[in-house]
Amino acid sequence: MEIFQYIDAHQSDFIKDLKEWVAVESDSVQPHLRKEVMRMMALAADRLAALGATVNLVSLGSHQLPDGQVLPLPSVILGELGKDPQNPTVCFYGHVDVQPAKKEDGWNTDPYTLTEIDGNLYGRGATDNKGPVLAWINAVETFRALKLAMPVNFKFVIEGMEEAGSLGLEKLLEEENQSFFSDVDYIVISDNLWLSNKKPALTYGSRGNACFFVEVECGSKDLHSGTFGGIVHEPLLDLIALLDSLVDSTGHIQIPGIYDSVAALTEEERKLYELIEFDLEEHRNNCGVKKFLYDTKEEILLHLWRYPSLSIHGIEGAFHEPGIKTVIPAKVIGKFSIRQVPHMDLSVVKKQVVEHLEGVFSKRNSPNKLKVSMPLGAKPWLADVNDVLYKAARRAIKTVFGEDPDFIRDGSTIPVARMFQTVTQKSVMMLPIGAADAGEHSQNEKISRHNYIEGTKLFAAFFLEISKLHRNLHETSHTETIN
Amino acid sequence: MEIFQYIDAHQSDFIKDLKEWVAVESDSVQPHLRKEVMRMMALAADRLAALGATVNLVSLGSHQLPDGQVLPLPSVILGELGKDPQNPTVCFYGHVDVQPAKKEDGWNTDPYTLTEIDGNLYGRGATDNKGPVLAWINAVETFRALKLAMPVNFKFVIEGMEEAGSLGLEKLLEEENQSFFSDVDYIVISDNLWLSNKKPALTYGSRGNACFFVEVECGSKDLHSGTFGGIVHEPLLDLIALLDSLVDSTGHIQIPGIYDSVAALTEEERKLYELIEFDLEEHRNNCGVKKFLYDTKEEILLHLWRYPSLSIHGIEGAFHEPGIKTVIPAKVIGKFSIRQVPHMDLSVVKKQVVEHLEGVFSKRNSPNKLKVSMPLGAKPWLADVNDVLYKAARRAIKTVFGEDPDFIRDGSTIPVARMFQTVTQKSVMMLPIGAADAGEHSQNEKISRHNYIEGTKLFAAFFLEISKLHRNLHETSHTETIN
Repeated sequence: MEIFQYIDAHQSDFIKDLKEWVAVESDSVQPHLRKEVMRMMALAADRLAALGATVNLVSLGSHQLPDGQVLPLPSVILGELGKDPQNPTVCFYGHVDVQPAKKEDGWNTDPYTLTEIDGNLYGRGATDNKGPVLAWINAVETFRALKLAMPVNFKFVIEGMEEAGSLGLEKLLEEENQSFFSDVDYIVISDNLWLSNKKPALTYGSRGNACFFVEVECGSKDLHSGTFGGIVHEPLLDLIALLDSLVDSTGHIQIPGIYDSVAALTEEERKLYELIEFDLEEHRNNCGVKKFLYDTKEEILLHLWRYPSLSIHGIEGAFHEPGIKTVIPAKVIGKFSIRQVPHMDLSVVKKQVVEHLEGVFSKRNSPNKLKVSMPLGAKPWLADVNDVLYKAARRAIKTVFGEDPDFIRDGSTIPVARMFQTVTQKSVMMLPIGAADAGEHSQNEKISRHNYIEGTKLFAAFFLEISKLHRNLHETSHTETIN
Repeated sequence: MEIFQYIDAHQSDFIKDLKEWVAVESDSVQPHLRKEVMRMMALAADRLAALGATVNLVSLGSHQLPDGQVLPLPSVILGELGKDPQNPTVCFYGHVDVQPAKKEDGWNTDPYTLTEIDGNLYGRGATDNKGPVLAWINAVETFRALKLAMPVNFKFVIEGMEEAGSLGLEKLLEEENQSFFSDVDYIVISDNLWLSNKKPALTYGSRGNACFFVEVECGSKDLHSGTFGGIVHEPLLDLIALLDSLVDSTGHIQIPGIYDSVAALTEEERKLYELIEFDLEEHRNNCGVKKFLYDTKEEILLHLWRYPSLSIHGIEGAFHEPGIKTVIPAKVIGKFSIRQVPHMDLSVVKKQVVEHLEGVFSKRNSPNKLKVSMPLGAKPWLADVNDVLYKAARRAIKTVFGEDPDFIRDGSTIPVARMFQTVTQKSVMMLPIGAADAGEHSQNEKISRHNYIEGTKLFAAFFLEISKLHRNLHETSHTETIN
């Protein structure tokens, strides 16, 4: 196939492009590097313009750091290429800022000099997210260079603050929802990794996150355990009893009703889990624990992705330093979160948590003040794997890699997928090209030459498949309308 | 009585002395003020020498601060006055260093300028402990000025590092046990307060403190609750279950056997509690809690002083900051302590705690590592209120204040009383002259003119009473030996 041949023949050019991008220390976390983020955004905008895209740099204003310093936010690139009404419009989201990296952190090579060793391209941003952004651009470029008709209309959302919380992005999406996004059919994000080192994956969901604060207070001042130990209802004892009521030792959440709305596992879904390539032993070794709560791959993945979990993170206000302090803390705040899943409703979850904790607390006859709040509630995200978007990607993967992908979810919240989904209500897909061992956010981040180049082919193949499937769908709808 | 008249007549001189001492910022906590502590020690040594005492300044060497700085420790004053073999030898312990204080902390007057307002003498160290040290010295001085025979032989231990942990003192006591302390009959400490604002008190015991660390670990690295929540045995959940097993909501310790060795309450002891003047409502308001675990004065004091209590102080290794961090901490250390009482044995307590926690843990089938340790075990202190030391003080109080004292204990450990008791094996008494509202360690610390002057009389009267009782005891013993 001409397209794949072109991509293979231009490997060196594509890697040269990536080397040029990695060389820019576009670290959005450290304020003194903000100008490098700006420089990176300009590079990306030029690259899109060279494709023939119209490029609009939308200013997001500035933000204030905790120390009072005011910094300009990098503009977000909104790009458009092609307006053929026969074509579907696919919007690609990516970011060109990176996490901080220093050679001294334990890198074997300079993090800002892309270096190939044994087929791996090492450098900060190689996989997160400069590599995938360039692979997409280079896939588009391939059609242009070969003077082929563009199978889809492209839109681009490229930002420079992802690693610092995507400040201002959600507001921009809301503002552009009726204009830039109005004719978008599909949204593709390639900012995550496969589950394994070798087998491609498609990500179709992530859990939400409902964070809770449980505050127990006996008064305004901390007390001394010598002077008051034994005669007061200690807030920390109340809090510990409350926290101890949340989960049993098998990991089962004890809040009444909490599992009521969890979507039932279908047979079709169970089969997806059986097919997934996942090395339980390796996963266990990576995290360092002796034993998981479950023994089989299927159970582990089900409990990580599609069942809720409750984790306790810590306590604010109690003694937390090394050594001893014989204090009775007057006000303590327990922090825990529930990774919730479809179709749990955030407001119902909150009500169940509050009622449960108030019930446990009332049995203690404590004169202390209890306050339960949910300072953060992020919804889960779940796409339909039978959507044409996923069908097209699956076919493209089969074409390029010769096998079906793992259909995977993420146990964590993926804010950007949820954000695009919630604001635009379009079909969103996470289409990763990096392998599980790519080390995003870590020392020695990399993308393999194989994944970078085959990933470029995957995107090109995907353009053709989604174009075909979308047209079919459109024609079928049309026919149906006539019948 | 001549002695009391002299003391009344010389109030202004005694207050002038206190003003001079308070003016020295002998803060032992802040390193840059160490030279002021040294200056204060020299002043105190001069004052004792002026009494006619022989004064020995014993060097304790130096200590290293956490930042690496090495500072000289102030020498400890060992003073002696009188060697009459007919007289008992009473050793007085006091300290002339103070807690930090700054006007900006909320003082109404300059903390280092002793200021009299409405009969109260405000200034840092006024009650803790410069006032009582001077009251003792001035009581001795009164006998000298009036050319009266000294009723007792005096020894003095005056230190300058009490507020910074009495560094080196215990070692010095051990070294001097066979020499300086060999002929000491009684040890008196006046470094605490009455229980009420008006009624004098004698302190005869303090609880011990057995501190425990409970460590639970799943591995070497913290985990992300999105990536591992729901599949691992979270160490913090284990720890919370362990901590929740320690005390029930009524304050009763749940560790099997923990109450077995607690001394039974005698009828005589119960009567002491009934006589104590203690405003429960005021105490409750002072600490800010809505309600205590018990309703009566007697129950509150019994549970504060002569029954054990268990307080949980906090957790090291978990998330403790404001905000949210969706972490599963890999290693957490719970900190709690048991205020233990006679006749609980520290090694038995440790065994009971360890066995209980291991039992609870084993029921959870957790693969995590549990480690329980007791990094600190301070013994309780209990004196015999029928000892001549207490009889003499009681009579002196009756003479000066016209009423019997409250016989009180302290719910906290009093390290210095326990230290003198353990090392020297002599009778130790805490004989406070400051009222409950003296505000030691607080802003606007004070001693009232009344307490300072009547306290001086109390010490003088006590010299006479202990002399008499000791001689009686000695004669009786002598007679008994003959019989």
